[in-house]
Amino acid sequence: MAKELKELTKRADNYSQWYNDLIVKADLAEQSAVRGCMVIKPYGYAIWEKMQQQLDKMFKETGAQNAYFPLLIPKSFLSREAEHVEGFAKECAVVTHYRLKTNDAGDGVVVDPNARLEEELIVRPTSETIIWNTYKNWIQSWRDLPLMCNQWCNVMRWEMRTRPFLRTSEFLWQEGHCAFATREEADANAKLMLKVYAKFAEEWMAVPVMQGVKSETERFAGALDTYTIEAMMQDGKALQSGTSHFLGQNFAKAFDVTFLNKENKPDTPWATSWGVSTRLIGALIMTHSDDNGLVLPPRLAPIQVVVIPLGKAEQVAAVEEKLNPVIEQLRALGISVKLDDADNKRPGFKFADYELKGVPVRLVMGARDLENGTIEVMRRDTLEKESVPFEGIVERVKNLLEDIQQNIFKKAVTYRDAHIYECDNYEEFKEKVKDGGFFLCHWDGTAETEAKIKEETQATIRCVPFRIRTDTRRGYGIRKTIKVPRAHCT
Amino acid sequence: MAKELKELTKRADNYSQWYNDLIVKADLAEQSAVRGCMVIKPYGYAIWEKMQQQLDKMFKETGAQNAYFPLLIPKSFLSREAEHVEGFAKECAVVTHYRLKTNDAGDGVVVDPNARLEEELIVRPTSETIIWNTYKNWIQSWRDLPLMCNQWCNVMRWEMRTRPFLRTSEFLWQEGHCAFATREEADANAKLMLKVYAKFAEEWMAVPVMQGVKSETERFAGALDTYTIEAMMQDGKALQSGTSHFLGQNFAKAFDVTFLNKENKPDTPWATSWGVSTRLIGALIMTHSDDNGLVLPPRLAPIQVVVIPLGKAEQVAAVEEKLNPVIEQLRALGISVKLDDADNKRPGFKFADYELKGVPVRLVMGARDLENGTIEVMRRDTLEKESVPFEGIVERVKNLLEDIQQNIFKKAVTYRDAHIYECDNYEEFKEKVKDGGFFLCHWDGTAETEAKIKEETQATIRCVPFRIRTDTRRGYGIRKTIKVPRAHCT
Repeated sequence: MAKELKELTKRADNYSQWYNDLIVKADLAEQSAVRGCMVIKPYGYAIWEKMQQQLDKMFKETGAQNAYFPLLIPKSFLSREAEHVEGFAKECAVVTHYRLKTNDAGDGVVVDPNARLEEELIVRPTSETIIWNTYKNWIQSWRDLPLMCNQWCNVMRWEMRTRPFLRTSEFLWQEGHCAFATREEADANAKLMLKVYAKFAEEWMAVPVMQGVKSETERFAGALDTYTIEAMMQDGKALQSGTSHFLGQNFAKAFDVTFLNKENKPDTPWATSWGVSTRLIGALIMTHSDDNGLVLPPRLAPIQVVVIPLGKAEQVAAVEEKLNPVIEQLRALGISVKLDDADNKRPGFKFADYELKGVPVRLVMGARDLENGTIEVMRRDTLEKESVPFEGIVERVKNLLEDIQQNIFKKAVTYRDAHIYECDNYEEFKEKVKDGGFFLCHWDGTAETEAKIKEETQATIRCVPFRIRTDTRRGYGIRKTIKVPRAHCT
Repeated sequence: MAKELKELTKRADNYSQWYNDLIVKADLAEQSAVRGCMVIKPYGYAIWEKMQQQLDKMFKETGAQNAYFPLLIPKSFLSREAEHVEGFAKECAVVTHYRLKTNDAGDGVVVDPNARLEEELIVRPTSETIIWNTYKNWIQSWRDLPLMCNQWCNVMRWEMRTRPFLRTSEFLWQEGHCAFATREEADANAKLMLKVYAKFAEEWMAVPVMQGVKSETERFAGALDTYTIEAMMQDGKALQSGTSHFLGQNFAKAFDVTFLNKENKPDTPWATSWGVSTRLIGALIMTHSDDNGLVLPPRLAPIQVVVIPLGKAEQVAAVEEKLNPVIEQLRALGISVKLDDADNKRPGFKFADYELKGVPVRLVMGARDLENGTIEVMRRDTLEKESVPFEGIVERVKNLLEDIQQNIFKKAVTYRDAHIYECDNYEEFKEKVKDGGFFLCHWDGTAETEAKIKEETQATIRCVPFRIRTDTRRGYGIRKTIKVPRAHCT
């Protein structure tokens, strides 16, 4: 592993390769035997579980409940909402048969031609269609509204170019699907859920995001408006990190959903849908990590503190006796602590490995520390280490974790803000945009101009921002638009 | 709803219909537009979430970690393990294409014939094959063992006859897949996980289970031994509620997984797999519920206490003022409380609805209670209600929840044990087995006898029990075998 660590590509040499290397070396994920599908390894999955726990809590606080809808969608459902099918239906996994049989040679299986489905089924790329077909039975009266369901599940989009977490054929996500009696409630919900995502990104992932609305071209297929959070990666490119859609009445109409309103008249509900996926793990990696490996925000780190005793067996025993109450106290505070006293790995190997894995705080203690009443504390974000008094170490670690959480957020904000440019001149824009960054520009609002900019510069309109959240710059009005080079991955 | 409640079929009239009715009326699940696939509604899903939380904790205590493996499995993987393919591969959803296109008329989509996969992909019916193909890369040395992964996911088996929760084409489950250096460790893990399942079933679901080993005929395809927990439903039939498999080296060999052992020699790992599914919700319903609706064990009830204030608006306000601190105190104890003060439903309707939904404790308070310093407490398991002093109600409710948990377990044990029969005479067995129940019988251990018994009586060998856990009867040795009529659903 110490050897492997050296092989981690430097960000400056090849940012994209660094990302791919890091995912494998930090044991987050790997390619599977199935084209475009990844295996999420236990360490990577533990990050996703922490994300899920917090997001799930935040969703439930808005009144959403979890439910589960079928994986497979009848093909005909996809063409019910005309714009939706245009945007989505093309690249899907299609189930055509429901049985295999032993081959003639008796040494393998073949698809049983007699088991062809009357109507093909699609592995869900998203679930608006099957869910609104279900809501038809659930929504009869204004009393049934609002209806707010979320599901945690897998979805599949047959992507040609895939990258772990950022774009894979199968991925894990949550999709919220809400129905309301009025347009205002639905639009407010779509905006509220974007705020939930932004809060999660900034306070939990320590990833600053720009909130705004997508251009018509980049909008979700079937939506009236798509709200988005956009994060800036270390290469200056944007990563769309979560979207919340105001769907209007499109899906309700496509699936004949009506309800009796308070005036006892037939009415059509208004809809939203909103989702974030395992792509968030990609955002996390690309925002904070460095040439030594992952840097994880303490609030989402599977292991927050690693404790390594040094010395020979006898010394280790004495050190551990001293450390055990500290570990217990940290755990009692809800902090996840790993004690690594394995004697078959050298300290240097362990240090490099936990740096690679992004463990926020490392505590090291040897015989000399025991004598001196000290302990060594290393923080992963800055790689600074210092010898501190053993007394009061619990409180110090607790504060340090909070400090790291704030520090990496500030660092990301500073980086992002240093790469946001106001630009009023197209020639200047064309030149400057080559180096990446977010550009605040005017735009005439037409798809033609958008296409032309994209063709000439590869930059895309990421959003028309609501306002720019930053510690160091003033806000910008909604008339301004961010254009940034399209990320490799978005 | 009060009207609908009357329509719930009585168990005595038609147990199977009662089950189907109850699932719909209690808002647990419903059929979807896709044959054999159900929608799990929020109330049903909330039960599954509570199950997941506890099981996940118990799995992690054994050292297992969560991970995620692909949904789709290359067809050729299924035939790698010969017995496995025999038992499983036949009824699967098969993905043959990866793209749709607009039809000629332009008003729908068709499968794009140019997008045919070179090798078909199967929607996972279980994941031994793809996981062991992955483990090949993860297991090199004895230091990589034990490897213990679990995944929470959806699986698909193309069932011809489906019943909500008990047998559906798609279902949610967890599947643990472990690798060990020795046979002993693997077999011990398979048995340990069965104990985890049994503990969960008895202590959380309040469902007594019989633990034992399956006959060769009923064994998991590819396993050397399948351990099972079998519960008795109210119709005297068995429901297989969880299985844990000792897989030997079959999958390791099929996927060429080897490791260097402590003696630095090539060796083959030993495997287990274990799973429980949303079928557990079916077991829960069929063990405890009655003609008034669900009876849920307090530990898994989404709503543990419902509080209903009575009277006109002014009285309700006064009652709620008194109730609010109680609700807060109950919630502070981790008890989930719902206050239902909706004024558009009559109390009688609410009472019937919460009985139908199986809320363990109902508190009702009106103006007279306020005067008298009393409150009405109803327990769902016995339907007993009594007026008790308001003073001390928090403590009383807390104890009552525990009491209900114990009581429904005892009731289920009593029922089960009253329907376990020792039988040494085949003629007697043939007659008696018609009425259901578990039969402890001798068996010569051959598949021929097993098939003959099944043909002549429809009874199947559910397991050779390790021992019989019961409060009222002595244990039975492993030489005895339980035969019971095959449940509709197993």
